[in-house]
Amino acid sequence: MQKSPSKIPIGILGATGAVGQRFLSRLAGHPDFTVAALAASEKSAGRRYAEVSPWRLAEPPPPGLADTVLRRAEPDLPCRIVFSALDAAAARELEPRFAAAGYLVFSNASAHRMEEDVPLLVPEVNADHAALLPIQRGRRGWTGGIVTNPNCSATQLVLALAPLQRAFGIETVIVTTLQSVSGAGYPGVASLDALGNVLPDIPEEAEKIERETARILGRFANGRVEPAALTISAHTYRVAVENGHTESVSVALSRKATEAELVEAWREFRADPEVALLPSAPARPLAYVDEPHAPQPRRHAEREGGMVTWIGGLAPCAALDWKFTVVGNNTVRGAAGGSLLNAELLVRALAGETEGSAAAGTRLRDAS
Amino acid sequence: MQKSPSKIPIGILGATGAVGQRFLSRLAGHPDFTVAALAASEKSAGRRYAEVSPWRLAEPPPPGLADTVLRRAEPDLPCRIVFSALDAAAARELEPRFAAAGYLVFSNASAHRMEEDVPLLVPEVNADHAALLPIQRGRRGWTGGIVTNPNCSATQLVLALAPLQRAFGIETVIVTTLQSVSGAGYPGVASLDALGNVLPDIPEEAEKIERETARILGRFANGRVEPAALTISAHTYRVAVENGHTESVSVALSRKATEAELVEAWREFRADPEVALLPSAPARPLAYVDEPHAPQPRRHAEREGGMVTWIGGLAPCAALDWKFTVVGNNTVRGAAGGSLLNAELLVRALAGETEGSAAAGTRLRDAS
Amino acid sequence: MQKSPSKIPIGILGATGAVGQRFLSRLAGHPDFTVAALAASEKSAGRRYAEVSPWRLAEPPPPGLADTVLRRAEPDLPCRIVFSALDAAAARELEPRFAAAGYLVFSNASAHRMEEDVPLLVPEVNADHAALLPIQRGRRGWTGGIVTNPNCSATQLVLALAPLQRAFGIETVIVTTLQSVSGAGYPGVASLDALGNVLPDIPEEAEKIERETARILGRFANGRVEPAALTISAHTYRVAVENGHTESVSVALSRKATEAELVEAWREFRADPEVALLPSAPARPLAYVDEPHAPQPRRHAEREGGMVTWIGGLAPCAALDWKFTVVGNNTVRGAAGGSLLNAELLVRALAGETEGSAAAGTRLRDAS
Amino acid sequence: MQKSPSKIPIGILGATGAVGQRFLSRLAGHPDFTVAALAASEKSAGRRYAEVSPWRLAEPPPPGLADTVLRRAEPDLPCRIVFSALDAAAARELEPRFAAAGYLVFSNASAHRMEEDVPLLVPEVNADHAALLPIQRGRRGWTGGIVTNPNCSATQLVLALAPLQRAFGIETVIVTTLQSVSGAGYPGVASLDALGNVLPDIPEEAEKIERETARILGRFANGRVEPAALTISAHTYRVAVENGHTESVSVALSRKATEAELVEAWREFRADPEVALLPSAPARPLAYVDEPHAPQPRRHAEREGGMVTWIGGLAPCAALDWKFTVVGNNTVRGAAGGSLLNAELLVRALAGETEGSAAAGTRLRDAS
Repeated sequence: MQKSPSKIPIGILGATGAVGQRFLSRLAGHPDFTVAALAASEKSAGRRYAEVSPWRLAEPPPPGLADTVLRRAEPDLPCRIVFSALDAAAARELEPRFAAAGYLVFSNASAHRMEEDVPLLVPEVNADHAALLPIQRGRRGWTGGIVTNPNCSATQLVLALAPLQRAFGIETVIVTTLQSVSGAGYPGVASLDALGNVLPDIPEEAEKIERETARILGRFANGRVEPAALTISAHTYRVAVENGHTESVSVALSRKATEAELVEAWREFRADPEVALLPSAPARPLAYVDEPHAPQPRRHAEREGGMVTWIGGLAPCAALDWKFTVVGNNTVRGAAGGSLLNAELLVRALAGETEGSAAAGTRLRDAS
Repeated sequence: MQKSPSKIPIGILGATGAVGQRFLSRLAGHPDFTVAALAASEKSAGRRYAEVSPWRLAEPPPPGLADTVLRRAEPDLPCRIVFSALDAAAARELEPRFAAAGYLVFSNASAHRMEEDVPLLVPEVNADHAALLPIQRGRRGWTGGIVTNPNCSATQLVLALAPLQRAFGIETVIVTTLQSVSGAGYPGVASLDALGNVLPDIPEEAEKIERETARILGRFANGRVEPAALTISAHTYRVAVENGHTESVSVALSRKATEAELVEAWREFRADPEVALLPSAPARPLAYVDEPHAPQPRRHAEREGGMVTWIGGLAPCAALDWKFTVVGNNTVRGAAGGSLLNAELLVRALAGETEGSAAAGTRLRDAS
Repeated sequence: MQKSPSKIPIGILGATGAVGQRFLSRLAGHPDFTVAALAASEKSAGRRYAEVSPWRLAEPPPPGLADTVLRRAEPDLPCRIVFSALDAAAARELEPRFAAAGYLVFSNASAHRMEEDVPLLVPEVNADHAALLPIQRGRRGWTGGIVTNPNCSATQLVLALAPLQRAFGIETVIVTTLQSVSGAGYPGVASLDALGNVLPDIPEEAEKIERETARILGRFANGRVEPAALTISAHTYRVAVENGHTESVSVALSRKATEAELVEAWREFRADPEVALLPSAPARPLAYVDEPHAPQPRRHAEREGGMVTWIGGLAPCAALDWKFTVVGNNTVRGAAGGSLLNAELLVRALAGETEGSAAAGTRLRDAS
Repeated sequence: MQKSPSKIPIGILGATGAVGQRFLSRLAGHPDFTVAALAASEKSAGRRYAEVSPWRLAEPPPPGLADTVLRRAEPDLPCRIVFSALDAAAARELEPRFAAAGYLVFSNASAHRMEEDVPLLVPEVNADHAALLPIQRGRRGWTGGIVTNPNCSATQLVLALAPLQRAFGIETVIVTTLQSVSGAGYPGVASLDALGNVLPDIPEEAEKIERETARILGRFANGRVEPAALTISAHTYRVAVENGHTESVSVALSRKATEAELVEAWREFRADPEVALLPSAPARPLAYVDEPHAPQPRRHAEREGGMVTWIGGLAPCAALDWKFTVVGNNTVRGAAGGSLLNAELLVRALAGETEGSAAAGTRLRDAS
């Protein structure tokens, strides 16, 4: 892995897992960041990447990756920013140590998402919650910090709900997820469980979707986030799809609206300019697909670099107000891509805030 | 196909399609019925079964089937009972002609299900609705009649809801279906649509589930069926499963109940003895599976001959009262097996009613 | 698990794995054997079966299994016969200890298959190789012994080749296997590797197929087995099939033969009466399916209890003489069912040989 | 669909089918060609594309396609080049009519591939066979002509074999194909046939592979192609893969070679410069993947735009000399991409030959 001198060096914690590979794939050729360190578990440290972890994605591995030597996941990496693809247990222990040691940790793990001073961000929806970061630093005495992105199913649900919440208010949401196997990592779901089958009740998933959605749609005021006052019920299923989660959603709105108004709310939804111009931001965060039997994970999840959330099938719901289908790319928008978007946002925000972008850039680049 | 003299001869309309093969498979060795005639479309009539329709089920074909010569679907078949595996359009035209000509038609097609004098039966739930048959005959001047079984997704939903309705009352149901490809017949769903994919919005399926469920759970009184006064919203999806539909259900009950009470309602649910003793009736219509990640279509749908409806994953629903998962065998319980159970019920009922079982048996046996 | 006093008690080593569950399923209701002990790894011993290993098969679990307490895999089990579903490493160490302690071990593991005094049996083909057992006992000073069944892919290949070898002689075999994921146990193949994919080169599989096939088709004479003098080349692939291996086979025969002669050789192939009458023996070991696009794993592998080997698609091979397709049930015929057939054969043989069947039965039944 | 004035206008015959969509996808943004006409069957002519054929690929549809009006497939299209995605029967009748009317037809259909004056091209292997085109024109009195690309399975086999043939000579090839469902078009393979299954004996496929491979590897001399003198036996299977064919290959070489020599032959294989510089030509036609369990269709077929043929798993074959695995993208390299490469080659060749590239370009551009 060649480091580029004009880019900000970053490290990856948990670089050999499924999400780690997604981070690596998306960071290859990134305009701001260059991979400076790959960290893995104690027993993998010191070994070549290719020895420890065969490349499993359909896109080719970054050049040079195979021979990169893995480091221990200790806060002595030559960078000031790390992406965390750790599992929840490792994240619980390691992420605070990195944050205390001055690293800005962009974490895909669930460990710290619901802590009240940790930003849980979908930048197009709640970039203002990033204001929790200085509070976190102040309160914990950290020079670094932890910034998280939500559960893959919550990410795409939040993106589909945010325009409705803004335009009409939301009272109630019932969502059934049909989640792809890539959401469970590698080796993850056994093929004997996945082939020709549906597995109900993904462990802890419904709770994450319910809690995280309300938090992200909540208001930041007086130094804290007040969760949105909506009722959410999630039912989760694993299906035999490689990548791309599908969600069956019913909603009750606070103010009655027409089908055309809902579609317009989705179609006109845009991120604020500070977010819309980030390198990983899609041209439009949402696409309403006005065709029968759409969207579909195999036909839509990979389009537009996997960062768009696809909505379709809007129809009246006999029990609540409306029902529709949401498809998103769980490993990109719902994991590595979402985390990267958070990092792009925060790097610019911190630069602008404290010292002007050039100086901050210099400081972050000095890390190694 | 050898006819057995002591059994009631039956015919199959649409014998070469996917549901037709299921009928044939289940009728092989049936204690009451023997296959006397296979009818197919004009262009297949006169040809050997094997020439027209290769056998596609995992269970072996009935002995002698390959060489059976197909007949036209005209009301000159040597039997008085026919099972209809026709598609909706053909059923709309042909089933009334058979009924007018004195045939008792047990139809899996949707064409006549919602006509007010046509019984739509799940015998464990609404055997009393069979009383529509004499009304139908009287009103239409038919000597035969049409008796229908519901849509595959509605069948298993009704079975899961009936005990709750009886014990607690049901206000609202939101169901998302994850339906197997066998529900679409053969060739049905293209493999390029099914593999690694989810297809939203099965045509006309949500409407059937909503309407038929309310009708079956309704009351028969004063010569008509009053649909149950509950709100049902269905969202339908096709998934890469060969056989067995999964349903994600949320319900609001009229009277609050505990988890234990719901499970007890399901576990103690039994058909009336007249139904429970029918040859195709399962020992218990419902099974609550008290294990994590259950039921699953590949592990449960084929058990107990495919006639049991499996329920699991009961948990509080934040939006309504309870959520749970239902799995059923769509080609057996939801199609051929359900139709056969209807026939077993009606043959006994008609026998008992009009002339005593032995005499009726004789009459039906005389058909050929 | 209720023991039946009139049956021979058996134990299962590795009872919680995928093959262990297949043994349990097939032993439920077996006319000769009753399960007296389930052994598992040290860390599972003392725990209830259901706690350690959820039931994963489509057929229902044997009654009482969930609460059966697991034992350590030590030679103090209340039986004289054990089935081994151990992995190769555990089998290498444990099976000889059981054999030395007087247990007759029927092993599905590869560990000892190629040892020259260990019978490697497909009873319809080489029941006479069972004569290695007394030689093994004598040479090793064991009162028990080890009897093995071959690799799943070798089993069905041997069954398809044996009639050709007997009738025409075989010079060369080239086989490409398309193996189902159940052959890799549970959790086995990751769904991200299996879905929409083909995995080449199953580890060590080609070697096993080549070696074991030649050995089973070999001659027993002068106290040893001389491998058949044929050339076999195997190429192995994993495909997205739940159960049932498919093999693409090309053969060169020693003596030229017609298509009709080959089909006749397969259709007339029968086991010797001593084998044909065993409880697990299929009515006919082979079925030639004279239809296009047959046999297929999803449509044929489960038929006839999974013990038949299906052959089809015979056509001239431009490079060797003939090509054809073989489908077999890898978890039944190729694993638990094959092992059970071996046990049925040996129990009868030992009984007949040493003391008359009744006395031997008594002795084996005394074990607990 | 906007036409670009500086590009050569082309038409697509059979534009609404599966291969038609692949052509459309690859022609969007093509440097040389611009789509000027979409032709379909009589009953689709005059209708909008989106009405007749929903877009089914994972890559997005070309802008403007939905509203393009379909034309009849008659030789009055505003272009001189057409790509044919017709089925064999339609191709047999229509392609000669277009060729006679002055159109250069680049056909993916099998109808005319084996006619002795029709070029059957894999440009990296046998670009010199294009010399059949003037012979075809002369003999048939056509001002246009027909140029074909081979069957999808033959294409990737030829690419893997060509370097071995050149370096060592090939005596015998035995190939078993594991073909994806996209090779059968849309709707193509029924999901009930594909899911959890393997379908043997794809109709007419083995014959095409055997014949076409020998022809492409043959020598052009004295105005005709002499098929290569090698023996090829193909056995074909359909597997549950969306896209990407896998081939299990055994070869006997004329001259013995080492493993390293074979790998070197593949790795050093390059097209002639006239081919290597074509817009659709991959940087290297072949990639030898030196990893275990590689190549795989889901991980390799989509890489490098789908134009590379992937080889791996080279090992000694006990029966012939060597065995290995080949993976290729059947809808790109094996269909639309291969046809497009042929067109790029011929357009340049014709331009260079007759009048200099600029003039020829002008002439072809004048077509509309």
